[in-house]
Amino acid sequence: MKRQDAITCEFAVPFRFRVYFTEGVFDSDNELLREVLQEGGDRGERVLAVFDEAVFAASPTLIDDIGHYLGQNNVDLVCPPIILPGGEALKNQPVTVNEVCGLVERYKLSRHSFVIAIGGGALLDVVGFAAATAHRGVRLIRLPTTTLSQADGGVGVKNAINAFGKKNFIGAFAPPFAVINDSRFLGTLSPSEKTAGYIEAIKVGLIRDAEFFFEIERLAKALNRFEPAAIQRLVRRCAELHVKHIAESGDPFERGSARPLDFGHWAAHKLEQLSAFRLGHGEAVAIGIALDVIYSREAGYLDPAEAIRILALLQELGFPFFTNEMRDIDRLLVGLDEFREHLGGDLTITLLKGIGRGFEVHEMSRELVARAIEELRERDRALVAAE
Amino acid sequence: MKRQDAITCEFAVPFRFRVYFTEGVFDSDNELLREVLQEGGDRGERVLAVFDEAVFAASPTLIDDIGHYLGQNNVDLVCPPIILPGGEALKNQPVTVNEVCGLVERYKLSRHSFVIAIGGGALLDVVGFAAATAHRGVRLIRLPTTTLSQADGGVGVKNAINAFGKKNFIGAFAPPFAVINDSRFLGTLSPSEKTAGYIEAIKVGLIRDAEFFFEIERLAKALNRFEPAAIQRLVRRCAELHVKHIAESGDPFERGSARPLDFGHWAAHKLEQLSAFRLGHGEAVAIGIALDVIYSREAGYLDPAEAIRILALLQELGFPFFTNEMRDIDRLLVGLDEFREHLGGDLTITLLKGIGRGFEVHEMSRELVARAIEELRERDRALVAAE
Repeated sequence: MKRQDAITCEFAVPFRFRVYFTEGVFDSDNELLREVLQEGGDRGERVLAVFDEAVFAASPTLIDDIGHYLGQNNVDLVCPPIILPGGEALKNQPVTVNEVCGLVERYKLSRHSFVIAIGGGALLDVVGFAAATAHRGVRLIRLPTTTLSQADGGVGVKNAINAFGKKNFIGAFAPPFAVINDSRFLGTLSPSEKTAGYIEAIKVGLIRDAEFFFEIERLAKALNRFEPAAIQRLVRRCAELHVKHIAESGDPFERGSARPLDFGHWAAHKLEQLSAFRLGHGEAVAIGIALDVIYSREAGYLDPAEAIRILALLQELGFPFFTNEMRDIDRLLVGLDEFREHLGGDLTITLLKGIGRGFEVHEMSRELVARAIEELRERDRALVAAE
Repeated sequence: MKRQDAITCEFAVPFRFRVYFTEGVFDSDNELLREVLQEGGDRGERVLAVFDEAVFAASPTLIDDIGHYLGQNNVDLVCPPIILPGGEALKNQPVTVNEVCGLVERYKLSRHSFVIAIGGGALLDVVGFAAATAHRGVRLIRLPTTTLSQADGGVGVKNAINAFGKKNFIGAFAPPFAVINDSRFLGTLSPSEKTAGYIEAIKVGLIRDAEFFFEIERLAKALNRFEPAAIQRLVRRCAELHVKHIAESGDPFERGSARPLDFGHWAAHKLEQLSAFRLGHGEAVAIGIALDVIYSREAGYLDPAEAIRILALLQELGFPFFTNEMRDIDRLLVGLDEFREHLGGDLTITLLKGIGRGFEVHEMSRELVARAIEELRERDRALVAAE
């Protein structure tokens, strides 16, 4: 035997951030962003702002508004806001991460400076990864502009880009400095963009909070009419449950093998990829949830009446049940391997024992997946026929 | 006023890793690495090994040894160990990070799999950054092979690559899964590589632990003869103080403005860069320490007798006092701005009130820096004349 001894290094890193809800964040009488920037405690720190092209198209005055707002508060905006194309395609371009890091360098931002990212989930991911790695981490303030990012991705602790054909292959866990959900952005979205966020709310209700699921049922008509109060309520409660999970799950940086918030996502990620991202994340997750709901029922875990109730809500909110990428079940099932590979350890999939009661399994039956797909195809046909 | 409310997300992430000391980590009767891999708890997880070219050159049998060692323990080495050129130049090549991430993808490593990095500080940094970002973090086992990396960088929580002409501009805080310091590697180093690690040990003694500084004085002759026991003792205690600082400082991920372990480093980083990395990190830090020691004396903080004692030890161990890159003081002083920029907030520089007693100042006088440089130039001339 050889001499061996060891030193143990043990410590905990505390994280704390807030998700704010406001309307008109750059209105001159809105104090919120000014107060958030002051929380940093450093005087004279710099701000780099990065916008989603779609946000700019919907609100062309926003660039002037942010310049005016920061100027009136004596905040050093280092250059005019940068405009980047949003959407999943951005995440396939690692050069964008390098460009944002280059701006951090050129304008001498420090770890105490701020990057403000304004856009949908893809833009927040790409800019967030740059902010997480330049200087090993510059302060990031996220202003999510879609229902999906305000309710879900934008309030979390992850960022990533796609690489080697795999979604979110390269990234970091990096909590933001703050998140500001401005309801005014939601008014500018297209119908399908508004709807996309509904599905993550249904998801979190299904696995964690039956009362929230029932509330979404009651709000369904108002959500279909895109009533702002209904959308804001859905976003608010979904963000709250998402944040609660991160803070209380005991595994915010996902070191174990379980990802309960990814209910329905094993198939969704694969379908997005197989469709070359023609299928949006919201639609893909809706199909993935419908698949795992039927699977839960077929495997004997979920009461058939509850399954019907869930599928009825998905249908009422206009989500699809089927996409051609599901025809090749073997290619879809590769998604299970990729889901396992990302975290490691045993395969861990969340299924339902009831509305609000997610639980974990460690294998899935090919036969039951095939049966669930067949049922979804028939439900899709029936929908098309009824139209 | 607009409606505003907020959700608070607050949690702490615990980290724990061990730094082991052994000899002959791949000897078939050495249990250590096998035990460390088993700590992961997952059966059948995969291992990717990446070597420093210099390590391979010094120990060509090592590739066979690692294959044999892991094979005999039924560990899945996914491909023959990858050999990369080591040294600072590697950190200027972001493509290497991408290559290592590509191997993680190609060989289906998960977050629970292991990347084993075997080499000097630069290789550990590059491979560590890849391991920190692929899947948002694969387990990294570091086997530092130089005195510098075993005593200092290899046992810490940082990794980074150079970008935009700035050292360590892009990186992440990512504690390793484990660190294994194998003393056998140290025997293969060149004299200057052996000496390079001495300076970080002197540094940590100077700012934190006078007794360790005095011990290095007593060991100086043995260190100059490169006696293994003396080198191992220095590495052991330096690593211990480094790890203790990370665990107990209260700011392991450097959110404040102070970097006490970077005593002497503001000038060192700039000199490395100005010399296009002709100057090694060890030499640069030695010069940076000598500069800040004389500065501490000139500013009235440090007793002249203690300053003499420190400079005498640096001289006895063969460290240089001067390099031509110091002739242009204005270019050197840009290093202070860059040092501040990296963290943000106030400039925070560690100086000495005595041996073992580092403290912080928030400005440096150009005049005193100039005087210190002049003294170093004269001391250098006297050394050359005496030879």
